[in-house]
Amino acid sequence: MSSAGAPFTLRATDASSKARAGILHTRRGPVETPVFMPVGTQGTVKAVSPEELRQLGAKIILGNTYHLHVRPGDALIERLGGLHRFAAWDDAILTDSGGFQVFSLAKLRRITEEGVHFQNHVDGSPTFIGPAESMTIQRRLGSDVVMAFDECPPHPCSHEEAARSLERTLRWERESLAWWDGQPNRPLVFGIVQGSSHADLRERSARELAAMRFDGYAIGGVSVGEPEPEMMAAVERSEPFLPPDRARYAMGLGTPPQLLEMVARGVDMFDCVLPTRLARNGTAFTRHGTIGLKNAAFAEDPSPIEENCSCPACRSFSRAYLRHLVKAEEILGLRLISLHNLHFYLSLMRQTRATILDGTFPSFRRNFVAGYRAHATPPPD
Amino acid sequence: MSSAGAPFTLRATDASSKARAGILHTRRGPVETPVFMPVGTQGTVKAVSPEELRQLGAKIILGNTYHLHVRPGDALIERLGGLHRFAAWDDAILTDSGGFQVFSLAKLRRITEEGVHFQNHVDGSPTFIGPAESMTIQRRLGSDVVMAFDECPPHPCSHEEAARSLERTLRWERESLAWWDGQPNRPLVFGIVQGSSHADLRERSARELAAMRFDGYAIGGVSVGEPEPEMMAAVERSEPFLPPDRARYAMGLGTPPQLLEMVARGVDMFDCVLPTRLARNGTAFTRHGTIGLKNAAFAEDPSPIEENCSCPACRSFSRAYLRHLVKAEEILGLRLISLHNLHFYLSLMRQTRATILDGTFPSFRRNFVAGYRAHATPPPD
Repeated sequence: MSSAGAPFTLRATDASSKARAGILHTRRGPVETPVFMPVGTQGTVKAVSPEELRQLGAKIILGNTYHLHVRPGDALIERLGGLHRFAAWDDAILTDSGGFQVFSLAKLRRITEEGVHFQNHVDGSPTFIGPAESMTIQRRLGSDVVMAFDECPPHPCSHEEAARSLERTLRWERESLAWWDGQPNRPLVFGIVQGSSHADLRERSARELAAMRFDGYAIGGVSVGEPEPEMMAAVERSEPFLPPDRARYAMGLGTPPQLLEMVARGVDMFDCVLPTRLARNGTAFTRHGTIGLKNAAFAEDPSPIEENCSCPACRSFSRAYLRHLVKAEEILGLRLISLHNLHFYLSLMRQTRATILDGTFPSFRRNFVAGYRAHATPPPD
Repeated sequence: MSSAGAPFTLRATDASSKARAGILHTRRGPVETPVFMPVGTQGTVKAVSPEELRQLGAKIILGNTYHLHVRPGDALIERLGGLHRFAAWDDAILTDSGGFQVFSLAKLRRITEEGVHFQNHVDGSPTFIGPAESMTIQRRLGSDVVMAFDECPPHPCSHEEAARSLERTLRWERESLAWWDGQPNRPLVFGIVQGSSHADLRERSARELAAMRFDGYAIGGVSVGEPEPEMMAAVERSEPFLPPDRARYAMGLGTPPQLLEMVARGVDMFDCVLPTRLARNGTAFTRHGTIGLKNAAFAEDPSPIEENCSCPACRSFSRAYLRHLVKAEEILGLRLISLHNLHFYLSLMRQTRATILDGTFPSFRRNFVAGYRAHATPPPD
């Protein structure tokens, strides 16, 4: 547990679901939950400046342990004063364990009981990351919310394979937490529930981690290509065994309705590359679903991406202008759509929190999910 | 002449050179000169937002007639309320004539006495632009400073060829100016001095245009691949025959010392893609010359691009961070370097103006040019 006191305060729970409003207490200040955390993979949220993130109301962003270890290097970042100073971000930073990228990006992987040997995807240098290495990297970066080192098995994964991976991961997570013993002003340290799609393994993982008393709990091994019902099941199979006085974080997802459904299942924290990744393809989120701004239907559309949206793109620019920028491959186009999409996710979580606090979450959730289609067609005229 | 009164007020002239401080009076407000105008080729200054341009102190930007005519189309922009509203820019916009791009980008060009037939570089559609077409496009865009339609001959160009081109251009320019007769609240209309590297043709061009009483005068056919002494000579051969009560604009150049040398030769207005184009390659301007931020020498350099620079990049970010962003191909890197480079050019012209007004321009020019090398080496240590 963080030396600063309780890592999480529960403020309210929805009466008809498991949705919660709370506060995550980081050493860089409180973070109101449910919360969306923009992803700053390489020490920058793609196409967006720290100043813009602050204006959007982001209070916590992600950095990727694997990416920053490979380039420019965590030792270099530490010598330059840590990731906050390097990237000019004063609020909280959460770093992942590196595990997910090692398993999705690195080449020539070899897993041992101690950790993972691999060649990185940038220059092929041989590297080893185990629990101590992951914690060291995250400490050097200056992370405020550290993830325990875990293995992220592929989907699908047999029970036998998943069970073997889980035992190794539980040991790595215990070592990760112990690594911080006695360190002053230490960050929050989160455990990660694994167990693939197997209910008994999810339960075992959650129970074991809960007993270790982490500062918070991530649900890992989701958004790895499984169908949506399995994604929901992974949370449903883990959540009942996690302590209610700790934040829960569903890693790497998802669509706006998925976030609301996850909130209803007791999840407090989210990160996802969709808002910025889709923006770079000219796709914008609206409460009716995504719209592709390359669509000829928007060529002369003077309206903003979404009426009554207060984001910097919608305040000043038309769909017609954004379409022109995207078609002409101008950077301002993907910048503005990135801002809109991040605003959409950040304010969706702010609204969600407000409705949990005032008791209207059930209708908010129902109406939002009913009104949202994966791909909204252009509005008539 | 603009219906609003004198198009240009001369405030001061340097005692030992032809450097001038003045005010260009556009219908969107006064613009202090010498001035640098960021280039918004396709309706956006590359990688930079209009809000950022305002914060950098830009008072006038360029739009490219040819590019915007081809995509998204000047008629579309007019229907959406003009380029100012389309691109959310409330201050002055200058548009070029389209001539330069027709001659540098378009395919299958055929010049007649009436104008130029060509296929555009985006979809190959056959197009014709003559004086009336160029004026119509610029009016639809809502330009505040319109350029007469001209032919931009290649370099080098024989006297015979240049003379034939000049006669055609002078006729086109006369037709361009006449096109605006009787239009209310019309923009400023500038003539463009041509004549290639031939002194007698430059003189003839400048004298003829001066007699037509344009609102200002551009010097064209520079920065088309000629050596620097010829670039200077093109100005020296034109300027004496231009009326002192009109602004002079050297099109499409240049390096920071070239701008100062042009100012010393009586030029008031500049546009150039160098600040943004070099930024996208990771190159930043400093008063000692450009630095390539990919250079390994900057890998752990905690200092800003330039000490005491007040731009948004230098206020918050180190060379080390910028190098990381450039190496990792992150958009924030070229955004920040673009801001720095534009700030460099804009503030160079603001300082130049201040020194002309307080009488210190000669030493400012001398010291700046002496201290600037094309490529500054990384500082020791």
